[in-house]
Amino acid sequence: MGMVGGGRGAFIGAVHRVAAAIDGEIELVCGAFSGNPEKSILSGQDLMLAPDRCYATFDEMILKEKDRPDGMDVVSIVTPNHLHFAPAKLALEHGFDVICDKPVTFSLEEAYALKAIIEKTGRTFALTHTYTGYPMVKEARALIQQGALGKIRKVMVEYPQGWLSHYIEGGENKQANWRTDPAQSGQGGALGDIGTHAENLAETITGLHITEVCADVSIMVEGRLLDDDANVLIRFNNGAKGVLSCSQIANGEENSLKIRVYGENGSLEWHQMEPNTLIHRNQYDHTRVIRPGVGQLSDSAKAHIRVPAGHPEGYFEAFANIYRNFARTVRKRKQGEAPSEIDLDFPTIDEGIRGMLFVEKVLESNRSDQKWISIPG
Amino acid sequence: MGMVGGGRGAFIGAVHRVAAAIDGEIELVCGAFSGNPEKSILSGQDLMLAPDRCYATFDEMILKEKDRPDGMDVVSIVTPNHLHFAPAKLALEHGFDVICDKPVTFSLEEAYALKAIIEKTGRTFALTHTYTGYPMVKEARALIQQGALGKIRKVMVEYPQGWLSHYIEGGENKQANWRTDPAQSGQGGALGDIGTHAENLAETITGLHITEVCADVSIMVEGRLLDDDANVLIRFNNGAKGVLSCSQIANGEENSLKIRVYGENGSLEWHQMEPNTLIHRNQYDHTRVIRPGVGQLSDSAKAHIRVPAGHPEGYFEAFANIYRNFARTVRKRKQGEAPSEIDLDFPTIDEGIRGMLFVEKVLESNRSDQKWISIPG
Amino acid sequence: MGMVGGGRGAFIGAVHRVAAAIDGEIELVCGAFSGNPEKSILSGQDLMLAPDRCYATFDEMILKEKDRPDGMDVVSIVTPNHLHFAPAKLALEHGFDVICDKPVTFSLEEAYALKAIIEKTGRTFALTHTYTGYPMVKEARALIQQGALGKIRKVMVEYPQGWLSHYIEGGENKQANWRTDPAQSGQGGALGDIGTHAENLAETITGLHITEVCADVSIMVEGRLLDDDANVLIRFNNGAKGVLSCSQIANGEENSLKIRVYGENGSLEWHQMEPNTLIHRNQYDHTRVIRPGVGQLSDSAKAHIRVPAGHPEGYFEAFANIYRNFARTVRKRKQGEAPSEIDLDFPTIDEGIRGMLFVEKVLESNRSDQKWISIPG
Amino acid sequence: MGMVGGGRGAFIGAVHRVAAAIDGEIELVCGAFSGNPEKSILSGQDLMLAPDRCYATFDEMILKEKDRPDGMDVVSIVTPNHLHFAPAKLALEHGFDVICDKPVTFSLEEAYALKAIIEKTGRTFALTHTYTGYPMVKEARALIQQGALGKIRKVMVEYPQGWLSHYIEGGENKQANWRTDPAQSGQGGALGDIGTHAENLAETITGLHITEVCADVSIMVEGRLLDDDANVLIRFNNGAKGVLSCSQIANGEENSLKIRVYGENGSLEWHQMEPNTLIHRNQYDHTRVIRPGVGQLSDSAKAHIRVPAGHPEGYFEAFANIYRNFARTVRKRKQGEAPSEIDLDFPTIDEGIRGMLFVEKVLESNRSDQKWISIPG
Repeated sequence: MGMVGGGRGAFIGAVHRVAAAIDGEIELVCGAFSGNPEKSILSGQDLMLAPDRCYATFDEMILKEKDRPDGMDVVSIVTPNHLHFAPAKLALEHGFDVICDKPVTFSLEEAYALKAIIEKTGRTFALTHTYTGYPMVKEARALIQQGALGKIRKVMVEYPQGWLSHYIEGGENKQANWRTDPAQSGQGGALGDIGTHAENLAETITGLHITEVCADVSIMVEGRLLDDDANVLIRFNNGAKGVLSCSQIANGEENSLKIRVYGENGSLEWHQMEPNTLIHRNQYDHTRVIRPGVGQLSDSAKAHIRVPAGHPEGYFEAFANIYRNFARTVRKRKQGEAPSEIDLDFPTIDEGIRGMLFVEKVLESNRSDQKWISIPG
Repeated sequence: MGMVGGGRGAFIGAVHRVAAAIDGEIELVCGAFSGNPEKSILSGQDLMLAPDRCYATFDEMILKEKDRPDGMDVVSIVTPNHLHFAPAKLALEHGFDVICDKPVTFSLEEAYALKAIIEKTGRTFALTHTYTGYPMVKEARALIQQGALGKIRKVMVEYPQGWLSHYIEGGENKQANWRTDPAQSGQGGALGDIGTHAENLAETITGLHITEVCADVSIMVEGRLLDDDANVLIRFNNGAKGVLSCSQIANGEENSLKIRVYGENGSLEWHQMEPNTLIHRNQYDHTRVIRPGVGQLSDSAKAHIRVPAGHPEGYFEAFANIYRNFARTVRKRKQGEAPSEIDLDFPTIDEGIRGMLFVEKVLESNRSDQKWISIPG
Repeated sequence: MGMVGGGRGAFIGAVHRVAAAIDGEIELVCGAFSGNPEKSILSGQDLMLAPDRCYATFDEMILKEKDRPDGMDVVSIVTPNHLHFAPAKLALEHGFDVICDKPVTFSLEEAYALKAIIEKTGRTFALTHTYTGYPMVKEARALIQQGALGKIRKVMVEYPQGWLSHYIEGGENKQANWRTDPAQSGQGGALGDIGTHAENLAETITGLHITEVCADVSIMVEGRLLDDDANVLIRFNNGAKGVLSCSQIANGEENSLKIRVYGENGSLEWHQMEPNTLIHRNQYDHTRVIRPGVGQLSDSAKAHIRVPAGHPEGYFEAFANIYRNFARTVRKRKQGEAPSEIDLDFPTIDEGIRGMLFVEKVLESNRSDQKWISIPG
Repeated sequence: MGMVGGGRGAFIGAVHRVAAAIDGEIELVCGAFSGNPEKSILSGQDLMLAPDRCYATFDEMILKEKDRPDGMDVVSIVTPNHLHFAPAKLALEHGFDVICDKPVTFSLEEAYALKAIIEKTGRTFALTHTYTGYPMVKEARALIQQGALGKIRKVMVEYPQGWLSHYIEGGENKQANWRTDPAQSGQGGALGDIGTHAENLAETITGLHITEVCADVSIMVEGRLLDDDANVLIRFNNGAKGVLSCSQIANGEENSLKIRVYGENGSLEWHQMEPNTLIHRNQYDHTRVIRPGVGQLSDSAKAHIRVPAGHPEGYFEAFANIYRNFARTVRKRKQGEAPSEIDLDFPTIDEGIRGMLFVEKVLESNRSDQKWISIPG
């Protein structure tokens, strides 16, 4: 694997490297870690890479690695949003499979363009919507697929964070700087950064699509350029309704992504900060607390658990589930084998487009006096 | 105290009686427990009342008790919504103070009319919005008044229940029957029954008023006549935003009223099902778990706690706090004394009107294509 | 009902009065609230009792009330431990039924003597071990009786409090003063006050008896005269083993009584501070969270719940369950009816003797170099 | 790194490999994964190792790798307990640093012998007591060191599991087979496997030593050869007292290691299954919920956290903290640098000896009629 971005001081690049390393199926061999060539080499040294495999630019990496007999097989893109499309395009067009951070691109147009390239090149593309990598999210999805809840009626999904409660832009917090900058993040602030995770979680677990939104989007902190809070009424393609709320000014909240899905015959609740617990309620029976290793789980959940009951797996392991499945899919395809359903269980460009559409339409709704704005299919 | 409603088989009447009894400051002496005179007498016998004080109608009770030297002082009204106004009016006009279940009346018009009568008669009127009777709700309100959160930016309040997940109207569940019947409940189903509690909790804790709503109100269960689910975007008079959601089809939920208030400098979270815990978060400090008896509380919270730390007080005690304060206010006023701030800490007709306005405007929003509907001040 | 003790400034007397009032089946008509006649009358006035029914001593109350046509039927004893036996004896011998706070007496000898008096007089005697009055404790007991756990193997019960972490004796805290005074409390400090609750809870839920103890009992706070911490290895009559721990120096703990019972086929966990939740675990199935109103409960639990799902009932209601059952038993016996199994579901002198034996033997174990000390019976 | 043990079907070997991989500072280059040479090679192939570096025995690995220029630097030992000492001895004596699973050896004698070898060879030796690798355990230790609790008075530590509730020995569960076999595990069953974790956690967090034990150790499942349950009264070198309980027959429990430490001025509670939360109580203040990233942490805790607030880190990351610190210590020592305090923050042979002593003395206590048995040191 070669990496684009993730140099010294970056947060998510290091997470990707841990996630890729956990299952021992992926080796980081090269990188273009920074737009600054020197910093790229220093970052590579930190990672004990050979100097000749620390590149100044992603173009250089892709072109040179292509010609090496021991060259990389896949590219991991962990740059800010405005630098996803170009390296993804180049890598795909040179035959590399790609795994990319979310949101998938800077704009909806880029997302559609990327999809066309993926289809044309036939390469594998994975999008790291981490939170759907958790085993209990797989279990929730499986329970709903099996009909445990009956028809879905209501979905409450929220993602409150508090780290942007004050104006910290322009300071030492590199994360705050690029995530609040329209030139790097695109048109969505909290919406793009975490709203898309909430949307992806809701659609993945329920198997439904959001078809209408009615949004109240805010910039709560004076001087900020992108939204830091959004409350959205949502409607789904099966008639279900609900609320999606995300915030980066929910002072005191850590990373409190949470979903509840209510069906005719029961409900599920999952909270990212206690990821190994899934609560299954039913008005006619006692609440069940579903956890790895006590009681039966779906094959899908079991395939994403590494340790026995009560040994907490967390964020890195959820992330690693995406990397592992992506790696296995790539490997099997290279070997002419068909990946299994579990191998293929990772988010793709389609989820990426759904996220970009969501941001686009929520912002359109926010600008409009019309109550409901449709999201295409 | 005399009671209107609350005969055999009623739920909330019994709760009112327990609440009134807990502090030993109120004695039930008579009642018109049922429209059916026989049933009224039988209900009174269950309560060990003298037969001559079990009345067939509230008119009879009010008129006869007025003339007794040992007659009742106050009237408690615990009938379905359509039977609040008439007994309240009659009682007030005959010099009785009144404590009444919520929502205050059948319609907004009645609520305004009742306010005029209260003002004219100068009697004391209390509305049993139980949930603001909890000590930790008092504490939350006090912390916000003291500025612990800074400017309020976001309020998330929700009240999910699951007991109406299926069509059970017309069966043995007396509660389900009247609460889903527009002729008894008024125009709001879940909105009137529990949405008003959520609204009251949000406005009471924050000291703010909801000024705009944008609502998606549903009847999820086929054949039902009143709403059983609502999701509402809300905006407050200080610029804060948020979401209010209530549901009676949240299958598997019990009575899960919950509020979170986010301010510039911190946030509070309270959950009715763990009522003795208030969570105070702040991005710069460790989360504080505020509970009775460990650490300092506001005078307002302390005045509503009866036992030392760790002995859970619950729903009846919250209810009793309203009754006790009402009783003390009435007693002091009768004795020509001024009630204290704590004596006066109970919901009144003003909160009743806010609730009726909220239901009215949410339903108007639901029928409208216009995004925002204003609520007068 | 007449009350012995519970004057101004007492804690538990007020709790007893609320508990007696909640279900409207008991009326407080007189009391000997204090050894100080003036204070007794003032305390009675606070409670709106007639002055001629506020007595200077319990002897006076018992003798005078016996002769009144409207005299009390039952006596409630809420004094410190050294003042339980004498009023109980006198009341029983004059034909009154008695409900008494725990531990039942000052010494084991008194407890045996009291049992003899109860048997001789044939009166009803209830002991207010509050915590077994909670509905979820009834449910736990019912599940174990039904064999849901199989053979019980291990019991972990603990009761940590922190309020005596420092030497506060001799100050304004009346509770601290008498509870740490051997002349008023007897030989057990934390052991008598809360260790007996833990013992009673363990024996009640499991239906087993503790037959051997091995104890490490401490006075952690310098200058204190009675134990404030105890850790005890326990063995039961069926071969089960476990630990009982109680403490009043567990700094920061409120009233955290908690029990876990492990059987061959599953386990139960209950925590007094979240009393409406009972956790049922089983290694082959998902954990069940048992709560009132969602799913089915035993008749025994249902008979002790007053409100629908999600409206928390707490300490007062648990206490009230004992009072209500005692009252119904007394009433039926007076009317020549047989009380039902649920009417009879309250702790008696037998539980009182078990508690006194437990304190006696734990202290004997603490003084001994021998590992195990037997408890008869 | 070379690995001894951890072949196909083993549990803990895979955990060690993930832990070693997470921080990118250790590379697995060879292994003697199984006593069966063929299986060793197959296991190595699974891990994409060169066939010539998959050895049939640990002797072969150690001797051959010593002579390779690119040979391993450190040895990781993940075999059952009876196979710890011999490879550790050989590796140390051939100049390799060693990281080893716990309990450190088969017997106390071996542990003492190993300490002598470590001292003689001057190599670095780490013991993977995973649970003290959690950041919140570091925080608890730091708070106690800073005096946040004052003098420690009471320690409650417990480790309930339920997976051995039935007799499953001799079946397909390889873990059950060796862990219940005295020939492989040594004299301790639950005591050695998890009791030592509880002991290590208690001593690490408090900085105290257990000096006396009084134990009730059981074999609850018929036919089992080693203990599956133990309850132990403990006393510490500063006068503190407490209870240590461990069980593998706590039916329905997962891996519920939990500790509470009570001091004169406050208390701490930590639970392995919610490892990112540390609860700090104090009777005079509201409870603080200490979590990564909200509020300030000690340097020691911060050095062991990889991601921002609210992204749960779990078991693998705790394990990785030991590997990372061990690797850094080894690297610095090889480079002639002094490791930092944080580099050196991993369990060593001393903790290993404490564990073996604990098992030895608890079993001695269990056999004895004498109440207290001393533990040296």
